[in-house]
Amino acid sequence: MSLAIISPGKNSNAWITAIQSLDPALNIQVYPEIKDPEAVEVVFLWNHPEGLLGEFPNLKLISSMGAGVDHILRDKTIDPAIPIVRIVDEKLTWSMTNYVVMAVLNYHRQLSRYQRDKIRKVWDMSNPELEVTIGVMGVGALGYDVMEKLAYMDFPVIGFGFTEKKDFKYPYYPKEDLEGFLKAVNVLVCLLPLTAETENILNSSLFSKCNPGTYLINVARGKHLVEEDLIEALNNGQLSGAMLDVYRTEPLPESHPFWEDPRITLTPHIASVTNPKAASPQLIENMKRVKYNEPLLNLVDRMKGY
Amino acid sequence: MSLAIISPGKNSNAWITAIQSLDPALNIQVYPEIKDPEAVEVVFLWNHPEGLLGEFPNLKLISSMGAGVDHILRDKTIDPAIPIVRIVDEKLTWSMTNYVVMAVLNYHRQLSRYQRDKIRKVWDMSNPELEVTIGVMGVGALGYDVMEKLAYMDFPVIGFGFTEKKDFKYPYYPKEDLEGFLKAVNVLVCLLPLTAETENILNSSLFSKCNPGTYLINVARGKHLVEEDLIEALNNGQLSGAMLDVYRTEPLPESHPFWEDPRITLTPHIASVTNPKAASPQLIENMKRVKYNEPLLNLVDRMKGY
Repeated sequence: MSLAIISPGKNSNAWITAIQSLDPALNIQVYPEIKDPEAVEVVFLWNHPEGLLGEFPNLKLISSMGAGVDHILRDKTIDPAIPIVRIVDEKLTWSMTNYVVMAVLNYHRQLSRYQRDKIRKVWDMSNPELEVTIGVMGVGALGYDVMEKLAYMDFPVIGFGFTEKKDFKYPYYPKEDLEGFLKAVNVLVCLLPLTAETENILNSSLFSKCNPGTYLINVARGKHLVEEDLIEALNNGQLSGAMLDVYRTEPLPESHPFWEDPRITLTPHIASVTNPKAASPQLIENMKRVKYNEPLLNLVDRMKGY
Repeated sequence: MSLAIISPGKNSNAWITAIQSLDPALNIQVYPEIKDPEAVEVVFLWNHPEGLLGEFPNLKLISSMGAGVDHILRDKTIDPAIPIVRIVDEKLTWSMTNYVVMAVLNYHRQLSRYQRDKIRKVWDMSNPELEVTIGVMGVGALGYDVMEKLAYMDFPVIGFGFTEKKDFKYPYYPKEDLEGFLKAVNVLVCLLPLTAETENILNSSLFSKCNPGTYLINVARGKHLVEEDLIEALNNGQLSGAMLDVYRTEPLPESHPFWEDPRITLTPHIASVTNPKAASPQLIENMKRVKYNEPLLNLVDRMKGY
């Protein structure tokens, strides 16, 4: 059996080290240096070239290198009989939650206001806190952990998602009541998976239903957000600001208006980065399970898209 | 019975509204308009003029308007027989913890680095997290809550204080082992009360015992920090940065070097502001207790200084 790592443009050394420390005998081939495609039974991939997987006649398992699988599902040439799994990594959840809590607190405590005041040497003690109710779009492993941490810190949290939820721990709005959800919150966190239903969901129509001055945090995928609609919503006051980690084109092009917009805080897709050491045991375990025909961890439902 | 509110230079209207909503019949006099000093049995004060309390011959209770009492204890003319109480307010604790968690997360996730990168349009995904162990100096109501929240978020926390602690929930170093404490942490949060023992504790000698690159968060009192020693420690690398909410002189003078130091994030003493609505019931309850000679809430030990 051979594992192929396919992650064009990225260095795979940290992954190889982590995987080999768990299974020293495993044969690993790294794209584009795949000398023996017939031996490849498992691919571990991120943004693979479309159609590539057809070159592996004995492929038994496809694993995403992260939580998202939209980069796999968009390749319609993949044999639907081959299972797809993804990484659900506590360290990844931890990082994502920390990032979102940071973004919420910086908005609630108006960090950017005090940073502006510092430059002008202004001492203004008035109204040091903004009242916030945090709406989390997407209440899977990541979104739920964000809600748990914010609720423990005594912030009101409300969930929204595309499936029915019974006995959910927090107030929850299904997709039919997006408007009710938006009216109940003033901080909007997007942690949805990227699917046909969620692509472009953060658009002018949604922003027009928000409470004026709502703050947006997008840590899911760039394609959730219609970027020109964000600028429009900031201009017309429906949104008061945004913290973004993901973009339609990454790296964000130098000519992109977000770079120079003071209402937007940017980070370069670092909210949650899969950690090879933490995630590799999951890959190794799934390779074992596929070999012995056991139920896979974090199996993706192709219909749902996650 | 009359209540005197003494808070020079500050508007007391929010306090009056909150107190009257609980006890509409209470007679309230606001300094400097105190027409009937003989009626004053309770003073509610912040930064009162030294010696003023001698003008109230029937004074039975002194209440700070916040958590700190150093502004009261420095007035040596106050009759030692009159009890001093302070406000221990959950809302105040909540605000303080939120501020500290925000400061820790901004350091851990290097917000200022990404803010600099944004200005230069730099996309740098490398090393998105700094490892942190948070040392909390002062583990009273405020410090303990900070530790609880950070521990729930899975950050390592360590306490330090001036009293022995048995069966403390987290690792704890008493004053005799300040050096061991400093060697165990790389983020230092000061939440100590201001006493003769703690004044100027954040000085060159302490910074020289820190792990190089330690990050400082001071949300206690300006007098804990020797401000020129902070600049020196930033220059020689013992500290990598600081987030400060309190200063030796407030408002921070325009000529102060902190304003223009990019390594220091400043806020204007807003980390935790006592909320009149949340705190007034405590004042009213203590007024009742002093009347009926019952044990007071949050009584200050003048020897300890808090």
